[in-house]
Amino acid sequence: MLMNTTYSSPIVTVDSVLFQLVQQKLAVLLITRVHQPFAGMHALPGGYVGAGETTLTAMTRIMHAKAGVVLAQCGVVEQLYTFDTVARDPRGHAVSVTYMALGRDIVPQVRSDTHHPQCFAMNALPDIAFDHAQIIQYAHERLKSKISYTNAIYALLPELFTLSQLQAAYEAVVSHPLDKRNFRKKILGLEIIHETDQTFRDGAHRPARLYRFNTQALTTFNEF
Amino acid sequence: MLMNTTYSSPIVTVDSVLFQLVQQKLAVLLITRVHQPFAGMHALPGGYVGAGETTLTAMTRIMHAKAGVVLAQCGVVEQLYTFDTVARDPRGHAVSVTYMALGRDIVPQVRSDTHHPQCFAMNALPDIAFDHAQIIQYAHERLKSKISYTNAIYALLPELFTLSQLQAAYEAVVSHPLDKRNFRKKILGLEIIHETDQTFRDGAHRPARLYRFNTQALTTFNEF
Repeated sequence: MLMNTTYSSPIVTVDSVLFQLVQQKLAVLLITRVHQPFAGMHALPGGYVGAGETTLTAMTRIMHAKAGVVLAQCGVVEQLYTFDTVARDPRGHAVSVTYMALGRDIVPQVRSDTHHPQCFAMNALPDIAFDHAQIIQYAHERLKSKISYTNAIYALLPELFTLSQLQAAYEAVVSHPLDKRNFRKKILGLEIIHETDQTFRDGAHRPARLYRFNTQALTTFNEF
Repeated sequence: MLMNTTYSSPIVTVDSVLFQLVQQKLAVLLITRVHQPFAGMHALPGGYVGAGETTLTAMTRIMHAKAGVVLAQCGVVEQLYTFDTVARDPRGHAVSVTYMALGRDIVPQVRSDTHHPQCFAMNALPDIAFDHAQIIQYAHERLKSKISYTNAIYALLPELFTLSQLQAAYEAVVSHPLDKRNFRKKILGLEIIHETDQTFRDGAHRPARLYRFNTQALTTFNEF
């Protein structure tokens, strides 16, 4: 077995950006740090990777321990990027293999070690420890890009949804309003959703058709 | 300074998949391993990351030392994925932060430590050490995906090129022939290249118009 000290290798850590829609806003899960450095500040759920543990195994373990969230319940979980600047952790050089998770109705559980997991709207983020604000920004860019060439947004939505609800989800991710007519033309042209025979009645409006994604698996379009 | 042994953290390594077109074929740069394990086998250029060194700094250093290649000469260099299965290195748990680089006319230099860097066509790869065949496959998928929503293919091509040459580059990446008429319609519709006033005459054919990418910087299209 190689000893890390032979090569003075950086420490390996993991951090995860869990996005979901809360009241039609894009929101991210943060915990409150218990220990120094940055004790009392908000941060992404994360921690150390042990030798013999994959980064996803570590992330699953830590997400459950610190936020009471079962990572596998998210529709999309993917590796985001490995952040590796030398000064990002004041305790010493630690690289962070980061993950992006997309979920719906994920309710964090306050557990015994009291990390106070909570979701924050992206437009109301608090001060955040380490380089985690940068990691969240990177994840947001990835998500914006990803919904332009995949069906990834399915993971943020319920199984059945109206076109208005779908448009609101895209708008929450791209952070600006979309033209209704162009949106409908584009989304129907992509052939990633289909009409169901069900409708939804909201107040005095006429019932709106409910749609469903063709698949609840990540698929890419626009390929050459 | 944290000592790695406190947490038994995995070792951090880097490996790089450098793609370029050689005789209109997609090719990847491999070295020959000098030391055990897998001595004498082909592998991606890679090595250990030191504490206080970013993974890109390490990759740049190692690419120069083992293959005589200046990584910054590649038009696109991006982090690919961090491979972290426990048994991927027989010496102990080592995660590899991998990079994908796209270049043109990159000539590897045989240096004193004789790693014999050479390019291999993707359809004629030798047996490859560690999980590097899997890393190359992952990079190829990323590249195929990336050319469907960015102008990334510019980094594989000379500054001026014919539409036939551009189509051949796309075909080399996607590994199948494309319909000429559909290809031209699609590529011109993307508005990522423009005609120049120059032409290229090849044999008895009539001169072909030369094109240029609008920018030699990576840009994304198809955004919502």
